[in-house]
Amino acid sequence: MKLIRFGETGQEKPGVLIGEDQRIDLSSAFSDWDRKFFQEGGIESLKNLDLTVFPQISNDVRWAACVARPGKVLCIGLNYSDHAAESGMPLPSEPIVFQKAANTVVGPYDNIQIPRNSVKTDWEVELGVVIGKDARYLDSVEEAKDFIAGYCIAHDVSEREFQLERGGQWTKGKSCDTFNPLGPFLLTPDEIEHVHDLKMSLSVNGVDKQKGNTSYMVFDCYYLVHYLSQFMTLEAGDLICTGTPPGVGLGMKPPQYLKAGDVVELSIQGLGRQKQTCINS
Amino acid sequence: MKLIRFGETGQEKPGVLIGEDQRIDLSSAFSDWDRKFFQEGGIESLKNLDLTVFPQISNDVRWAACVARPGKVLCIGLNYSDHAAESGMPLPSEPIVFQKAANTVVGPYDNIQIPRNSVKTDWEVELGVVIGKDARYLDSVEEAKDFIAGYCIAHDVSEREFQLERGGQWTKGKSCDTFNPLGPFLLTPDEIEHVHDLKMSLSVNGVDKQKGNTSYMVFDCYYLVHYLSQFMTLEAGDLICTGTPPGVGLGMKPPQYLKAGDVVELSIQGLGRQKQTCINS
Repeated sequence: MKLIRFGETGQEKPGVLIGEDQRIDLSSAFSDWDRKFFQEGGIESLKNLDLTVFPQISNDVRWAACVARPGKVLCIGLNYSDHAAESGMPLPSEPIVFQKAANTVVGPYDNIQIPRNSVKTDWEVELGVVIGKDARYLDSVEEAKDFIAGYCIAHDVSEREFQLERGGQWTKGKSCDTFNPLGPFLLTPDEIEHVHDLKMSLSVNGVDKQKGNTSYMVFDCYYLVHYLSQFMTLEAGDLICTGTPPGVGLGMKPPQYLKAGDVVELSIQGLGRQKQTCINS
Repeated sequence: MKLIRFGETGQEKPGVLIGEDQRIDLSSAFSDWDRKFFQEGGIESLKNLDLTVFPQISNDVRWAACVARPGKVLCIGLNYSDHAAESGMPLPSEPIVFQKAANTVVGPYDNIQIPRNSVKTDWEVELGVVIGKDARYLDSVEEAKDFIAGYCIAHDVSEREFQLERGGQWTKGKSCDTFNPLGPFLLTPDEIEHVHDLKMSLSVNGVDKQKGNTSYMVFDCYYLVHYLSQFMTLEAGDLICTGTPPGVGLGMKPPQYLKAGDVVELSIQGLGRQKQTCINS
């Protein structure tokens, strides 16, 4: 199952995607893909639905973020071994965890707003994990699988000066408006065979920048869900951005950053594509 | 006006407080003290209400957090000059910003859960600022006053080992369940004469630990709202925890931390009192 959302900002509605581009409007049956939906086992009820009776969505309607605004967005730093090697940094002994503000989440084709006074807006393609039911002190890494609603592309846009040169904590550079395009769809785990062997890529203006594979994650998705649940309750609908592979702008020699007019395209094998144009705030 | 909320977890309702202890149930007129309420200027409509026609709330009903779960909780590090001096650390040249997960917010008399495997759970009394309307790229510090819905006590409970010894970013030690008791009430700005001259205190088991005054803030509330709005949209209902005065457990010689059975009491002049008992998770 591929969950999508559609419609203008603030008026998004839930739907599903069939194949590559057939979008079905399920707003007559569901209010949103949110905490309540996931926590009450909504995905199961979706699977028994006769999709042929619901209307199709016109092609010109906006693609929104694939799930409702998460209660929290947790991110993992330096979680790809090849990215750590490229950066000359040691592998972390346990996950580095920070947050993005949840109101950074936007649609997969929305514009990225370069913040005012930004000189170092950077890209990061990441595998997004959406929590399927509240998770607290999980007993094992294996158990964590049952707490994942699905996977999607998450673009962890980052302003490096705000993040790294303005006080030590990363929030300021991670939480700017539009800094988390999400989607185009959330793929349920039953439709993904090897989540830890997916090719990832990101290009800017058609030039390849990031090439990676989720097999290089230091701490895999199940480990992360179990680990985070030891510190806090992960709620249904929460999002985990699981880290980025090599090739971010900060790591280029010399560094490269985004400017108004640039076009960024992201893909993860089986999870579709994103495309954003950068504009000034 | 003193805004309160009441009722069991997950079923909280809005009300107001008259004097010290007369709680009025406004749930027949309002759904919650949330983003929509603040953004639509709800506080103004509250002021024109005849409170005598609404029912009183029984004394035995739980005091909930004074506002609905915020969209985000932003926190300011090292924001008291006397606390910085005590710690032997230089004053920050600009605000240090980090986040707590929004689901840390609980009522002012709820138990604090000591996380499993915690050895360094610490206290921090703070002045909480709740945003009154969406704020983005504010033009001036003065303008920020108009974007504040009110003030309250915020307890920024912190696990120091999780925060400081587990990867560099503070989220893990700040976002544990129950780590943000909030209230007992939100006081609107018209009823507070000098928000930057309020005495603050915190005791553990009746022994004074923190003594401070908001006059020692390095960056005051208006500065912070203006500053943060340059990085991200502050949404109505968002919470800013503005930093803590001297006397946290980490700064004691030797350090002191909370354990099950400990009772923490907090007060800020004009904003009432909180009291929590620590329990094991």
